[in-house]
Amino acid sequence: MIPQQVIAAKRDGGKLAPGEFALFLTGYLKGQVADEQMAAFLMAVQFNGLSARELDVLVKVMLHSGRVIEPGDDWPGPRVDKHSTGGVGDKVSLVVAPLAAEMGMVVPMMSGRGLGHTGGTLDKLESIPGFETRISLERFDRVLREVGCAMIGQTDEIAPLDRRLYALRDVTATVPSIPLITASIMSKKLAEGLDGLVLDVKVGRGAFMKDIDEARALARAMTRVGAARGMAVSAVLTAMDQPLGRAIGNALEVREAVACLEGGGPRRFRALCVELAAEMALAGGLASSLDEGRSRAEGALGGGGGMERFERLVAVQGGKLDPARSALGLPVAPLRKTVSADREGWVSRIDPLALGYGLIALGGGRKRQDDRVDPRVGFVMEVEVGTRVTPGDPIGVVHAGSVDGLATGVRALAEAVAIGNEENTAPLPGVLERIRSPGATTPGRGFPPA
Amino acid sequence: MIPQQVIAAKRDGGKLAPGEFALFLTGYLKGQVADEQMAAFLMAVQFNGLSARELDVLVKVMLHSGRVIEPGDDWPGPRVDKHSTGGVGDKVSLVVAPLAAEMGMVVPMMSGRGLGHTGGTLDKLESIPGFETRISLERFDRVLREVGCAMIGQTDEIAPLDRRLYALRDVTATVPSIPLITASIMSKKLAEGLDGLVLDVKVGRGAFMKDIDEARALARAMTRVGAARGMAVSAVLTAMDQPLGRAIGNALEVREAVACLEGGGPRRFRALCVELAAEMALAGGLASSLDEGRSRAEGALGGGGGMERFERLVAVQGGKLDPARSALGLPVAPLRKTVSADREGWVSRIDPLALGYGLIALGGGRKRQDDRVDPRVGFVMEVEVGTRVTPGDPIGVVHAGSVDGLATGVRALAEAVAIGNEENTAPLPGVLERIRSPGATTPGRGFPPA
Repeated sequence: MIPQQVIAAKRDGGKLAPGEFALFLTGYLKGQVADEQMAAFLMAVQFNGLSARELDVLVKVMLHSGRVIEPGDDWPGPRVDKHSTGGVGDKVSLVVAPLAAEMGMVVPMMSGRGLGHTGGTLDKLESIPGFETRISLERFDRVLREVGCAMIGQTDEIAPLDRRLYALRDVTATVPSIPLITASIMSKKLAEGLDGLVLDVKVGRGAFMKDIDEARALARAMTRVGAARGMAVSAVLTAMDQPLGRAIGNALEVREAVACLEGGGPRRFRALCVELAAEMALAGGLASSLDEGRSRAEGALGGGGGMERFERLVAVQGGKLDPARSALGLPVAPLRKTVSADREGWVSRIDPLALGYGLIALGGGRKRQDDRVDPRVGFVMEVEVGTRVTPGDPIGVVHAGSVDGLATGVRALAEAVAIGNEENTAPLPGVLERIRSPGATTPGRGFPPA
Repeated sequence: MIPQQVIAAKRDGGKLAPGEFALFLTGYLKGQVADEQMAAFLMAVQFNGLSARELDVLVKVMLHSGRVIEPGDDWPGPRVDKHSTGGVGDKVSLVVAPLAAEMGMVVPMMSGRGLGHTGGTLDKLESIPGFETRISLERFDRVLREVGCAMIGQTDEIAPLDRRLYALRDVTATVPSIPLITASIMSKKLAEGLDGLVLDVKVGRGAFMKDIDEARALARAMTRVGAARGMAVSAVLTAMDQPLGRAIGNALEVREAVACLEGGGPRRFRALCVELAAEMALAGGLASSLDEGRSRAEGALGGGGGMERFERLVAVQGGKLDPARSALGLPVAPLRKTVSADREGWVSRIDPLALGYGLIALGGGRKRQDDRVDPRVGFVMEVEVGTRVTPGDPIGVVHAGSVDGLATGVRALAEAVAIGNEENTAPLPGVLERIRSPGATTPGRGFPPA
């Protein structure tokens, strides 16, 4: 296997022989293929895609590059996970994992770091002082049995190849590729020994999938890979045409998630959490209809049990979060500035992409793989699409770590928000479409028969 | 400037703002843009190209990333260089530099290392024991005045950005891109302070340009960049449908070049050297027609003056080459095996690509940027396209450093050569086409008026 021949074959649109492609991938793990070679290969995949057979090789090599957990029968409930393809302000996992646990599921959640212009659950969790996301699989198992949910980063033990590729794609603009996203997500989820999986496929300007056709293609690729291996996979296509919730930035988003678990938080964000928890109940066989799932999720959220689980999860994983303290004891940015409307009208657009890149510029996201993230910085919006404003009304607050950062953040926020003359039509519904894996049911735990 | 935004813009087919693109390029030199990011960017350029404006930015940043030599008036003749886009078995520079010097030109030749499946002049020169290709520009200048030609590798002083990109492209299959090749070649040549430049643009299976349209596009891009800066540039499109000459491999090619300078060597190879030296004479204003240039080149080659210059060049640059010793004192491979014809017929194909990759497999080329090259190994063909063979006739000899290498080399050689039933038509003519920079003449030294 000569790396540049494999790269050249993909560059030229040829099909890779399974054996040679597998050697290229394992060669990367062994240091025989360099980062720059893999980066060039990934960009070639970005343009020329992967055949179904090549995707199968990639998923298999990724999955078997590390430990594969067998589901086992001694769990108190179905093992179900939720995964988002990533958006701006997407802190759903922080709410949904404890919520689903409260509903009787076991949620072994493995999350990622910031990827391109979107944030990562791991970065958000690590804004909680002391929270450990790098724990052993044994400790992960113990937390899971104790709390019903546990949240860790990708460990070297699970799909190490994906971990390295994920970090590389992040900094090389090779994220928005359907086969690469599919392999990345599904290899990890297959290694988790799940009964069911709910995919939150984000669509829109702030998502990797800009249009619904792409999102559908991704959802189909993922449910197909799941189905082939007997896992109940449900893909929910959700709108990412504006930030999800009002907070963008790691510690700021934890605060918003807590507000939601306490029964508050932005309405649209809260509704999406309920919807995804309901889908999880369905995939895990704990509800026989979405409506049943929804009402159980709302009950769990209203009863305070979700919040209690979250607090236990944080404590057991070493984190210090104090609801009695200002900002829950989370790190706070030293500088803040409110940006105000300069004209009268209705908010016609809040550009999630501008805010996502704005967060990188503030230091709250990554330009490079080894950049450190400032957990304190970000934006808190005071408006949504459709909000009526007059000059001087606050549209959002920039939280920055430096004077330069503050100026950059103010510019980004001002650019992200457009104010128009017309009262807007309603924003897109949260859930646009659902795609479920055909016939993939775990006995007694999968989707109800159609 | 956020590197992944620049990469993403190129990936998505957008136009890069000149200032931002320049920052991305200088950021790479400063370590703010990582190798893997540049590799992904280069692959995106491979697919989406560069606009004329982007190419201009790239040439400028490359050129001014290092020292730019002013031509000066105190040279004994016009400063003319020859550059090949790279082929298999292409050792023309070793012959043409001393030949042109003998004809009255000053030839400040800066060469590259092996790139993809093709060899590099620098690797060939370094197979000569003691030959120093990393010398200061001051010493280069002294050699040039003393011998009339000098041959060095790219120094950190000249276009350091190109040097780094060249090494990266080599291992990431991002070599065959017209704008990248154009910028790489022209930035260095513009820095050399030349009066004239002859480009040998290789076309065919063993070249980066597989078809003549691509080669024409490259020739036009390069002559255009040259013309814009007042340099007489002549591009000669030459066939690379079979290896050039009979030797492929570093030390083996030096021996073939010496044979040519001594009045022998393969006929087609020799003819191409004469042709290119004649073009150089024309570009440098030392001949008023190609025929005049040709007859001067043949005279210089026949008279032994070229060989004498080459010997002086080698000696002055620290090399030890002894025409009296076996193999000129060059390193010799410990293992050799002759591959024979297994059937009767005419040689219908000698695949230069298979031999180029075969050389990499033998250890005589690079898989990775930091690989060491074994100067001893390679192939010496005993046949050309059209040669009549019967079973048992030798078709070529593999020179290897190990038993495994030998077996690999034998397979590569056997696969490269096809024997057919029909007496072949003549191979392609050496020179396919000529393209000269429009109106770019240095007073008294450029092309004669059309």
